[in-house]
Amino acid sequence: MLTIALPKGALLKDSIAYFQRVGLNFEALLEPGNRQLQVLSQDGRARALLVRAQDVPVYVQYGQAQLGIVGYDVLREKNPHVAKLADLGFGQCRLSVAVKASSPYRSARDLPPHCRVASKFVRCADAFFQQLDLPVDIVPLYGSVELGPITGMAEAIVDLVSTGRTLKENGLVELEQIFSSTAYLIAHPRSYRLNLNGLGHYVPQLIGAIA
Amino acid sequence: MLTIALPKGALLKDSIAYFQRVGLNFEALLEPGNRQLQVLSQDGRARALLVRAQDVPVYVQYGQAQLGIVGYDVLREKNPHVAKLADLGFGQCRLSVAVKASSPYRSARDLPPHCRVASKFVRCADAFFQQLDLPVDIVPLYGSVELGPITGMAEAIVDLVSTGRTLKENGLVELEQIFSSTAYLIAHPRSYRLNLNGLGHYVPQLIGAIA
Repeated sequence: MLTIALPKGALLKDSIAYFQRVGLNFEALLEPGNRQLQVLSQDGRARALLVRAQDVPVYVQYGQAQLGIVGYDVLREKNPHVAKLADLGFGQCRLSVAVKASSPYRSARDLPPHCRVASKFVRCADAFFQQLDLPVDIVPLYGSVELGPITGMAEAIVDLVSTGRTLKENGLVELEQIFSSTAYLIAHPRSYRLNLNGLGHYVPQLIGAIA
Repeated sequence: MLTIALPKGALLKDSIAYFQRVGLNFEALLEPGNRQLQVLSQDGRARALLVRAQDVPVYVQYGQAQLGIVGYDVLREKNPHVAKLADLGFGQCRLSVAVKASSPYRSARDLPPHCRVASKFVRCADAFFQQLDLPVDIVPLYGSVELGPITGMAEAIVDLVSTGRTLKENGLVELEQIFSSTAYLIAHPRSYRLNLNGLGHYVPQLIGAIA
């Protein structure tokens, strides 16, 4: 049976609407109070796993799910061994460098060498500053990265920005965009190559159903 | 001013009660709908930062908070450069190896070499199996680790267990305990050594206030 890894959080609603276009209904996952992490599609022909966004490529890489939806930001940060089938266009956001609005910096190059940059995206942040030839000390955080500059722990942050509201509420401004991100359809490479678990049937339909 | 990093989640309520015993009231953080990540104590003499459990030692290591409360599990996994002042006794849980109840394994040594073990505690899991001299493939997950054995991705998991309810609900059984964990009071080493930010005043009182 086809198994699909779906990400909890911001991309879930659009991901479910997308699979609905090829006849796979996983709306049970959106019911308030749902605690199930696995559901069958309404027609019983496929299964969805509800997992953290960062775990989607893990399930797909190990072949426990043949398909998954995940943000480009996660693919850039983790570089998993999965087949990137298509950019789905939804879930638009950007990975950006931001600083306190009161700081004197107007571009990432203005940051002082060996300053601290707080981020959940340690590898992406590191690669960006290496490319600028600016040595910085990346402080890895799991949540509320905006607290870094507020508390004075870090001069800057590298974080995902969608509407910009969180930055604004915390007195931060965007200096520079590192890359923009949208949701991607990914597949387990071997299952995709060999058309296992109904991928030969569903993948052309899914590609055709991109809005 | 003394700044204290408090962990979101399971340890928060007991942590706030603990600081209340030395006259520092951070109950504002418990108000329903609170969105503030920084609050002053009611008497205005100290500040609390509300951060993810894994971020507590980061704020303390960099000295942005002079004190923090964090689970021993996080200290074991991250090994941060902080001073461990005291075991606070609350927040009891254990890091354990678990497998499907239907599996033939009755101890961690029974697991087949090169099997997969899913965990958020990658370093602790790795160290445990190295010590057993059992080579395993650790699959790093961020959430819902119990899905690993259920989907067949992993033969076992290494995860925190408190009541055991999540394991039971998912048809898993505990094989072996790796270590037990409770909340710890930690300090920024230099601030502690030099009695900065009122640590000379608060630390003896805090040690005396352990239940």
